[in-house]
Amino acid sequence: MITVKIIGATGYGGVGIIELLLQHPEARLVSLVAREDIGQPLSAVYPHLTGFCDLPILAPDDPAAAEPTDFVFYSTPDGVGMTRARADLARGSKIIDYSGDFRFTAPEAYADYATRIGRNPVHAAPDLLGGNAYGLAELHREEIRNARIVGNPGCFATSCILGLAPAARAGLIDPTSIICDCTTGVSGAGKKVAPTFHYPARYEQLNAYKLAGHQHVCEVERELTLLAGREMRITFTAHVAPVCRGIMSTLYGTLNAPLTEDQALDCYRAFYAGSPFVRVFPSTAAIGTLHVRGTNFCNLVVSVDSRTNRLRIVSYIDNLMKGQAGSALQNMNLMCHCDETLGLNRPGNYP
Amino acid sequence: MITVKIIGATGYGGVGIIELLLQHPEARLVSLVAREDIGQPLSAVYPHLTGFCDLPILAPDDPAAAEPTDFVFYSTPDGVGMTRARADLARGSKIIDYSGDFRFTAPEAYADYATRIGRNPVHAAPDLLGGNAYGLAELHREEIRNARIVGNPGCFATSCILGLAPAARAGLIDPTSIICDCTTGVSGAGKKVAPTFHYPARYEQLNAYKLAGHQHVCEVERELTLLAGREMRITFTAHVAPVCRGIMSTLYGTLNAPLTEDQALDCYRAFYAGSPFVRVFPSTAAIGTLHVRGTNFCNLVVSVDSRTNRLRIVSYIDNLMKGQAGSALQNMNLMCHCDETLGLNRPGNYP
Amino acid sequence: MITVKIIGATGYGGVGIIELLLQHPEARLVSLVAREDIGQPLSAVYPHLTGFCDLPILAPDDPAAAEPTDFVFYSTPDGVGMTRARADLARGSKIIDYSGDFRFTAPEAYADYATRIGRNPVHAAPDLLGGNAYGLAELHREEIRNARIVGNPGCFATSCILGLAPAARAGLIDPTSIICDCTTGVSGAGKKVAPTFHYPARYEQLNAYKLAGHQHVCEVERELTLLAGREMRITFTAHVAPVCRGIMSTLYGTLNAPLTEDQALDCYRAFYAGSPFVRVFPSTAAIGTLHVRGTNFCNLVVSVDSRTNRLRIVSYIDNLMKGQAGSALQNMNLMCHCDETLGLNRPGNYP
Amino acid sequence: MITVKIIGATGYGGVGIIELLLQHPEARLVSLVAREDIGQPLSAVYPHLTGFCDLPILAPDDPAAAEPTDFVFYSTPDGVGMTRARADLARGSKIIDYSGDFRFTAPEAYADYATRIGRNPVHAAPDLLGGNAYGLAELHREEIRNARIVGNPGCFATSCILGLAPAARAGLIDPTSIICDCTTGVSGAGKKVAPTFHYPARYEQLNAYKLAGHQHVCEVERELTLLAGREMRITFTAHVAPVCRGIMSTLYGTLNAPLTEDQALDCYRAFYAGSPFVRVFPSTAAIGTLHVRGTNFCNLVVSVDSRTNRLRIVSYIDNLMKGQAGSALQNMNLMCHCDETLGLNRPGNYP
Repeated sequence: MITVKIIGATGYGGVGIIELLLQHPEARLVSLVAREDIGQPLSAVYPHLTGFCDLPILAPDDPAAAEPTDFVFYSTPDGVGMTRARADLARGSKIIDYSGDFRFTAPEAYADYATRIGRNPVHAAPDLLGGNAYGLAELHREEIRNARIVGNPGCFATSCILGLAPAARAGLIDPTSIICDCTTGVSGAGKKVAPTFHYPARYEQLNAYKLAGHQHVCEVERELTLLAGREMRITFTAHVAPVCRGIMSTLYGTLNAPLTEDQALDCYRAFYAGSPFVRVFPSTAAIGTLHVRGTNFCNLVVSVDSRTNRLRIVSYIDNLMKGQAGSALQNMNLMCHCDETLGLNRPGNYP
Repeated sequence: MITVKIIGATGYGGVGIIELLLQHPEARLVSLVAREDIGQPLSAVYPHLTGFCDLPILAPDDPAAAEPTDFVFYSTPDGVGMTRARADLARGSKIIDYSGDFRFTAPEAYADYATRIGRNPVHAAPDLLGGNAYGLAELHREEIRNARIVGNPGCFATSCILGLAPAARAGLIDPTSIICDCTTGVSGAGKKVAPTFHYPARYEQLNAYKLAGHQHVCEVERELTLLAGREMRITFTAHVAPVCRGIMSTLYGTLNAPLTEDQALDCYRAFYAGSPFVRVFPSTAAIGTLHVRGTNFCNLVVSVDSRTNRLRIVSYIDNLMKGQAGSALQNMNLMCHCDETLGLNRPGNYP
Repeated sequence: MITVKIIGATGYGGVGIIELLLQHPEARLVSLVAREDIGQPLSAVYPHLTGFCDLPILAPDDPAAAEPTDFVFYSTPDGVGMTRARADLARGSKIIDYSGDFRFTAPEAYADYATRIGRNPVHAAPDLLGGNAYGLAELHREEIRNARIVGNPGCFATSCILGLAPAARAGLIDPTSIICDCTTGVSGAGKKVAPTFHYPARYEQLNAYKLAGHQHVCEVERELTLLAGREMRITFTAHVAPVCRGIMSTLYGTLNAPLTEDQALDCYRAFYAGSPFVRVFPSTAAIGTLHVRGTNFCNLVVSVDSRTNRLRIVSYIDNLMKGQAGSALQNMNLMCHCDETLGLNRPGNYP
Repeated sequence: MITVKIIGATGYGGVGIIELLLQHPEARLVSLVAREDIGQPLSAVYPHLTGFCDLPILAPDDPAAAEPTDFVFYSTPDGVGMTRARADLARGSKIIDYSGDFRFTAPEAYADYATRIGRNPVHAAPDLLGGNAYGLAELHREEIRNARIVGNPGCFATSCILGLAPAARAGLIDPTSIICDCTTGVSGAGKKVAPTFHYPARYEQLNAYKLAGHQHVCEVERELTLLAGREMRITFTAHVAPVCRGIMSTLYGTLNAPLTEDQALDCYRAFYAGSPFVRVFPSTAAIGTLHVRGTNFCNLVVSVDSRTNRLRIVSYIDNLMKGQAGSALQNMNLMCHCDETLGLNRPGNYP
């Protein structure tokens, strides 16, 4: 069995990976760490887990939290993983971090990211960078298999990169023309209460936010630039809608040359031929976030606006699954050299 | 492998059992029958099943629909199962019917039910009654194991009966005092569109309905009467709230003698000691329908209002799971002499 | 013009009365007091009021907050109004208090209430009790017209009392048999964030709460007892559903003698003949909270369950309107000897 | 008094204008026409109007429906108004039509529109074109004042045009670069039920639709072209989110020259200085559709993405108010030479 420890077990990201691991045939949860609800069984915080996971929540400095496990998941904000990773590696653990701490392999790239989000640009463990991989399996499968540390992508970034990668690689679109117009469900903001996520302030509410700049832009531009072999910049807008789970990203790029929808579909299907969690649909498909809810799938709808010569991709994921815990488990599977779909190959419940 | 056919495959009840069977280690879906979308793969109707269930939808009179399978599920309205059952039994199939057709074992009891809902009181296959079982596993486990036909309970009925059974059996409450105040999510009305379930008419809407009488009352009274050994009658009110999945039933009965909450809890816990899908909680538990969503659990919160000498039970289920498809699969497991939790022992996703 | 001051202007109760006063032909808002957002214009807190109400928010101890006005509304929690009322009365103001501070006219009744909710049972201004009125216009119109202080009813209390008053007055139901099963929208809990009202924890969630006892029970029992001329006790259960606005209360009582629905309707219609904001409907009416949303109406659906000999009333209000600010404005109109519908006679927007 | 007749009274567009007219100091509803629920009082279809509007619904061919009124509103689909207008004009009525029938003044422009939506390109009353006005008051105030027929704009079109008009007029953006990414609430699809608006299929669902082309594009391009004095083409995407009311449109254009947010704000504020229903906000404003719900306002948030040299406007309206009935009433006010805010100057209820 693969033994697993979760740091930050009581947030939505923590409970998400716990739900998945409880149904994974090879994994065994060993310890749960958080800064709140110490000593409580997890099921006291999440009653739906009663009888499934009654492990106690350990404080970060509890000696029991230091016992080695095969994997440690950091479901923690920026800045936590980089201070814990060295000790966990020393215990022989492999690491999957949900934050931005290990999404960049060069200290300069990290510094750029950190600066944009108002954090200290100096990485706390720069020597660990380089050995890490960016945890988007569809683009970095081999690096993930060989990494000791994986930086799990941002949820918006996953949605945008998967939607634009085939076009970027094939050079279909003008690198200065890209617009990513994204809408997320409320769970993307996590478990912490805030006036803007209070039910009466959120039902019947659609709004854009962080218009000054979103932290996921760096990852998207880095990945698209890598794929295209030339610099790609995006205009990115984040919106929130009153759903719990789901990201819908509508992605626009001006075509370098005329293209039919069928040609675009061929390009996308070829690119994702080996990726079991990406499905490609034509523009007539009647699908949305509800059709990926509770699953690790990314559904892409491909269309071409020939009047204005634009490629338009609509990308749908569940932000807590392919956007977070599902992707993390897919990475664990790769790092264990298992089938990447193990414990993830489920269709969700509809409606 | 257990081979399975679904009649009425494209409603919510059909897709619910299909989702479960796809993840069941012993079952194999063989044929899907419906009256609409004939010839389409199921995944064209339910795109979340793309790659999971691409079986074609067969017309009811398609010869392929007549091939024998170990089980046939009738996810069909009242009156369909009773006309199909004889042929399916002759093919050696066991039957699980979602409607009221096989919830009653005496033709007179069926006639009473049918009259209340304005249907022909004469059962179309009265000779098959008696060999059937009422599919509430927690109360009829042995009969289900031995039955060829199981009448799956109504969703409200499941919620009310599980909430009141221990009190009825133990004689705690006055049989003339029982009130069942129930609220369901909208999926309980199925896939068929109607003005009252149109999104703009349903969001921000709480309302009672069918005040003249609900068809599930018969089952509840029959089961409670059986448990108590004396006639039990209920006042029942159905409400709808803007959730998709979930039934919350608040159940009231006047105590025959003073009782503490702890005593009531002991009674309930003892009653459900051998029932893996019923959990009993004290009145301080902070739980609701979201904590059983996507699962086969029934969560019961026990309280006593000593000021007015009443027992009050709040019962929570997912109407499409324990209220329908989950319960049906639990019954199939029992009829196969498998562990009743097979393919059902999952915690759901939160939030 | 009637000049008005609001204490607690930035909660939902405050903004609710402000929205109404802005459209009232005789009223003029003069000052707004709150403990947060001091110095900000109200429209900075509630951007929908931009251009409608840009008055600054004053601290409670700001001298400008002490200027006399014809009316002062206390949209404040228990315990605030009783310490401010003497000074406001001395300034010649009439007072409408949303809390329980002035819902009781005898110190002993207040003490009973305060004890149940865990507060000091000694009222801070007992000499002001007696001159106050309970602000349910349909039952206390004359007392409200003559009062200097009105204690605005609790939202659940309004819903239950209006639903049961005609039956209590007419002696239709057994006083020991009453059950009030109530469901509220989330705005009933106000503007303050809490884990249980966080959008992801609240969508798809139906749950009962405060099973140990709700503070509104006292008012309901007091009013019903007054109407019936004998002691009336209720079993009361509060639930929350994911709507923003609305209370649906289903109210049950065992009939003392057989009664038809038509007889019950006659009784209810006669009782409310002079009450413009109460509408009485038969059991076949297809209505719910959405049909009173944004209005001061209480819609009552009358039904009789003759099988079990029970009267059942379903009562619908908007908790922030008839349950709070609308009722408060209706009271102000009465205290000014205006038409009680002034500024309130609007149908709401559908859907 | 201004007498008014509504054709299509029982749809959301009809009931929306009725709600407004009931509160308008100068208007009086005289007759209501629809094709369903003939003979019923309107309050039987919309119970929230009980006591407010109990007028009977007349069949289109009812002689009573032919009585002259000062205004006739056509809350009807494409193709109805053009066949009725001549008779209504002959009766001396002024006309406001919600459909595309009178949004174009040249038969060729109508033919282009009709072709795109698959209708007969030949207008049924081409001689009436030219005397009509496009009912977007902020751009065509004088023409509306003098028109006998006003073609009320599409809801998406209102949102996009108001958001882009100042930039188009001022020549700020590249005419080939414009992207309109729009999300609507479900009420935009009207009262007619459909599988895609069934509550269980719509909650938790975000999706794009009509990717092949939306009928409102023509109007937007025509208006922007008029403002800019050169051809403007847009890429337009429509999405639906699970809110009832609201349109959020995020509008992108590449800047022709560097521009600060303050400069953009100045441009927008100057443009809308005389328009009481348009409010302009900086990029830091925390607003969304909930802040215009139930009102005739359009809130515009202005931002500049200097990294990619793009202007980005987020435009918020209530699709049933500024997007339909509110705009229609604003037009009626102008056509009567009243204050355009009469009966519309209200802030809405929050939350």
